[in-house]
Amino acid sequence: MGPMSTSSLDPAVAARLKRSADGLVPAIAQQYDTGEVLMLGWMDDEALHRTLTTGRCTYWSRSRQEYWVKGDTSGHYQHVKSVALDCDADTVLVKVDQVGAACHTGARTCFDADVLLSDAD
Amino acid sequence: MGPMSTSSLDPAVAARLKRSADGLVPAIAQQYDTGEVLMLGWMDDEALHRTLTTGRCTYWSRSRQEYWVKGDTSGHYQHVKSVALDCDADTVLVKVDQVGAACHTGARTCFDADVLLSDAD
Repeated sequence: MGPMSTSSLDPAVAARLKRSADGLVPAIAQQYDTGEVLMLGWMDDEALHRTLTTGRCTYWSRSRQEYWVKGDTSGHYQHVKSVALDCDADTVLVKVDQVGAACHTGARTCFDADVLLSDAD
Repeated sequence: MGPMSTSSLDPAVAARLKRSADGLVPAIAQQYDTGEVLMLGWMDDEALHRTLTTGRCTYWSRSRQEYWVKGDTSGHYQHVKSVALDCDADTVLVKVDQVGAACHTGARTCFDADVLLSDAD
């Protein structure tokens, strides 16, 4: 498996999904109750299929070139609550219940540490 | 101007920004008070610079190949409240105050219309 290969994703969804040249779409993970944006990962058709059907958010790791069930190593799973495509079908929003820290640094979200601007009016 | 060209972005930020092959990073726009994820756009260095310095969220339009101040056509500006990079410096999160609808369809967010899965346990 891997980007651009055959997947079990619902053909109706696959038909409207607009992938980048590398066969991937960005996937935003958001904590379902607090609204925190936790991280952004990448999905191919099969990662989206697994996210929709296994209840655990699954990405395609561009660095490792393999599927990556968030939490399989760290225990910090993302339990899937809802999944939506955007109006162009080129981005996925997954609302999840994040176990522990979303970021590999131990921070709650991947956007906590490198703030460029805050409290602008 | 355009992706990969010279920008006025702070050199310290430019040095750690990790761009895709096309010179862009995904930028998530989130309503600062409700937490709604509004849309995902793309930024090059100059779009990020303009977002940080003008107070209005500015993207690089991949389809039109030009800078795009969200709201210049529709009036639906995104007033910038905060900007952060993620832990890998390859994604931007912009918290904004969205005027009107974020989506060109008139929906409040770009993720309202195409729900693939909801209310999973």
